[in-house]
Amino acid sequence: MSNAAPAFSGEVEASIRAIRADVARLHGELVRNGLVVWTGGNVSGRVRLSPGGSADLFVIKPSGVSYDDLTPANMILCDLDGNVVAGSEGSDRAPSSDTAAHAYVYRHMPEVGGVVHTHSTFAVAWAARGEEIPCVITAMADEFGGPIPVGPFAIIGDDSIGRGIVDTLTGHRSRAVLMQNHGPFTIGKDAKDAVKAAVMVEDVARTVHHAREAGPLIPIPQEAIDSLYDRYQNVYGQSTDARR
Amino acid sequence: MSNAAPAFSGEVEASIRAIRADVARLHGELVRNGLVVWTGGNVSGRVRLSPGGSADLFVIKPSGVSYDDLTPANMILCDLDGNVVAGSEGSDRAPSSDTAAHAYVYRHMPEVGGVVHTHSTFAVAWAARGEEIPCVITAMADEFGGPIPVGPFAIIGDDSIGRGIVDTLTGHRSRAVLMQNHGPFTIGKDAKDAVKAAVMVEDVARTVHHAREAGPLIPIPQEAIDSLYDRYQNVYGQSTDARR
Amino acid sequence: MSNAAPAFSGEVEASIRAIRADVARLHGELVRNGLVVWTGGNVSGRVRLSPGGSADLFVIKPSGVSYDDLTPANMILCDLDGNVVAGSEGSDRAPSSDTAAHAYVYRHMPEVGGVVHTHSTFAVAWAARGEEIPCVITAMADEFGGPIPVGPFAIIGDDSIGRGIVDTLTGHRSRAVLMQNHGPFTIGKDAKDAVKAAVMVEDVARTVHHAREAGPLIPIPQEAIDSLYDRYQNVYGQSTDARR
Amino acid sequence: MSNAAPAFSGEVEASIRAIRADVARLHGELVRNGLVVWTGGNVSGRVRLSPGGSADLFVIKPSGVSYDDLTPANMILCDLDGNVVAGSEGSDRAPSSDTAAHAYVYRHMPEVGGVVHTHSTFAVAWAARGEEIPCVITAMADEFGGPIPVGPFAIIGDDSIGRGIVDTLTGHRSRAVLMQNHGPFTIGKDAKDAVKAAVMVEDVARTVHHAREAGPLIPIPQEAIDSLYDRYQNVYGQSTDARR
Repeated sequence: MSNAAPAFSGEVEASIRAIRADVARLHGELVRNGLVVWTGGNVSGRVRLSPGGSADLFVIKPSGVSYDDLTPANMILCDLDGNVVAGSEGSDRAPSSDTAAHAYVYRHMPEVGGVVHTHSTFAVAWAARGEEIPCVITAMADEFGGPIPVGPFAIIGDDSIGRGIVDTLTGHRSRAVLMQNHGPFTIGKDAKDAVKAAVMVEDVARTVHHAREAGPLIPIPQEAIDSLYDRYQNVYGQSTDARR
Repeated sequence: MSNAAPAFSGEVEASIRAIRADVARLHGELVRNGLVVWTGGNVSGRVRLSPGGSADLFVIKPSGVSYDDLTPANMILCDLDGNVVAGSEGSDRAPSSDTAAHAYVYRHMPEVGGVVHTHSTFAVAWAARGEEIPCVITAMADEFGGPIPVGPFAIIGDDSIGRGIVDTLTGHRSRAVLMQNHGPFTIGKDAKDAVKAAVMVEDVARTVHHAREAGPLIPIPQEAIDSLYDRYQNVYGQSTDARR
Repeated sequence: MSNAAPAFSGEVEASIRAIRADVARLHGELVRNGLVVWTGGNVSGRVRLSPGGSADLFVIKPSGVSYDDLTPANMILCDLDGNVVAGSEGSDRAPSSDTAAHAYVYRHMPEVGGVVHTHSTFAVAWAARGEEIPCVITAMADEFGGPIPVGPFAIIGDDSIGRGIVDTLTGHRSRAVLMQNHGPFTIGKDAKDAVKAAVMVEDVARTVHHAREAGPLIPIPQEAIDSLYDRYQNVYGQSTDARR
Repeated sequence: MSNAAPAFSGEVEASIRAIRADVARLHGELVRNGLVVWTGGNVSGRVRLSPGGSADLFVIKPSGVSYDDLTPANMILCDLDGNVVAGSEGSDRAPSSDTAAHAYVYRHMPEVGGVVHTHSTFAVAWAARGEEIPCVITAMADEFGGPIPVGPFAIIGDDSIGRGIVDTLTGHRSRAVLMQNHGPFTIGKDAKDAVKAAVMVEDVARTVHHAREAGPLIPIPQEAIDSLYDRYQNVYGQSTDARR
């Protein structure tokens, strides 16, 4: 039977359960930080099953479900082609309409463990002008190591959104890209890290927007940017995932 | 007795009860999304009683009652001329001062199942300039299929607000109209759908406002707008009313 | 003994208790509507004791107390010269630093039953330019009947703030004045009505600010303003104090 | 053993406990007032142990811990060189990455009892232009006695941030400095007073930003600024620490 529940080892099952819980809970951070309205926005997290990552899975939000109704059980498990894992919990629902873009990122960036997409106000405002956000505040140097880049205009329906994200972020310090006329996508080592990037990209998009409204900005010297980024990524925090 | 409670079938009573509950609850979404202050704003929902719709009723908010005090029981049942149904629950209160506009829309647009009016900040800002919101972000193409149009200047007292809404939205993809110097009215297949449109119109009004403050916007090609609108309306979501 | 509790009739005591409760609770509306930070802002309500009003009292917030700690018991009872009523409940604390201005208004405008002062962001922004808010949205015509006027620059220490408020609002439809470089003061028939005016003046200050940022505004014809104001003040609502 | 818990007198222990509780709780005010996102921002409070202050300690937030998880027990006790007090409660965690700047301030300004740092939006916007905030609203004259000054560009890694704060604020009425391209640091007689300054600096940064967007600002005469500052600092409030 093609719709039988997949048989995973207990360890894999536990990992899937943990990531379902994380992804469901992290959607609440999008609301709390004012990044989304109605059912917009989505978070996903990779389930690591294979050394090179090519046989991994990921967990993502269902399509069109209210934020109040998101639970670990209705998160959706997909393979790296973006297909729902037949028979898995929640597999009777459709995944987020942005699933193909998330899948493309996981397929081509094995180090990425989480992906987030929102239509947060100020990040979208820069995207509607196709303008990168200049690195003029130290928090941006810490977190993104330079400007936030713009990705190409691409619409849903093929791989062009995913490819735009991957092409823009590969080799770039930034974990955030502003897809032109569309909005921010962020990546991270896990779903929480990608959500942090989504929160921070809106914060810097808003701050630099207002800063520039009122007059010319003072650039930060490149070597100071490099030093801030290096220190923040490598020195601070309680552990590898708790920074500042 | 002219004030006797109307005698509806059990099925109609159940439908009225369900719509009272929906309309009361959906007013909370206006508050939660920051679209209203004090007692401003109103939501209504059609009670379908007749095939062509001409003998339908609708449920609307009472006038001047605090959002904390709205309950299914104090919602008000009106006929399509905007008259309170004599003897119905809550009929001792006056309905929203915008009732005539809602009634006009239900009378002339039988497919409409919900109407919402707010004075949300950025939508009113575009309305005070009499300027339509250009379609420069993909979320707007998805949801509205093009620009948000402006309706005529019209004041309370006759049918001119309702007529302005109907004339502007008839044959238009947009479910939202910005009535000049006044504010947004939105329609939908039911009250929830109209509330979603009210949330989204403020979201795009704010985002495009900020985008344009800082420089020229990149237009989205018409064929991409068409493709996004078509896909969003027809493909995504868990069912006909859950999209994205 | 000069600090003995005053001897009021039971009816007056009940009225004072009711106004203490109203004034304490209404401060929560300032927070909920984002009009104040820290301990800024103040609401007062008149206790009507005399036909012409000249022997009335009023209840106001204590100075420098956190919004979380405001209770009916720590509101302060003052006479119309702004002196704390000796021996009354809470009279061991100092009243709001704006008490003299409230007292001046009650002394000179016997019809006023409530006064509110805030430093809400956009109302203060217009005040810092000394610029009145033009009446370009229908909600403003409804509520204020025209533009929001600016009062003179005046600082704490004598009657100049109170006099500026009274001189500006006497004979004006608006219940709100923007004191130059300072902020809005609003009046009403009771404390709740003045709080509503404080909420609405910030709402229109913000909306018209953003509207004008992006281009020229369309004026509303004076006769339409007159018609909207007349209707809103006289026709709508459940009773004299519940409008829209 | 170098990691033994330090032996403080009962009185000092009680003082440390009280300041741990204050500092933990006051971080909640940063969230409530919208000054911080994610784990950004930090509050510290001095523990007074010595007459001249040179042997004092201070309590500060741990690095990279979520605001929901801050408790008195995980606040970190440091000496005035910014070193964690070995063996003290919470000393297994790293203190805020801004600890060195706080320590420098406490070392060089013995009257300072609290320090706060945030990346609040509008304060950072002024900082990114290196522009002081002009004193055009009376609330600013009350609270800061004049403009909010800008400090030098300085990055983490040596004493340059702390020195920039101290050099800018020494002899200045303002309790807030905008460190260029970075953000606001505020000081106060205790942690609560510094948090109040952080709240007020963002409030005035936002208000003056919007005021100036729309046209020229009216200056406040210097003698009025002096009078307002003097009165607010010396006359109002319930006691020395409750003002307005």
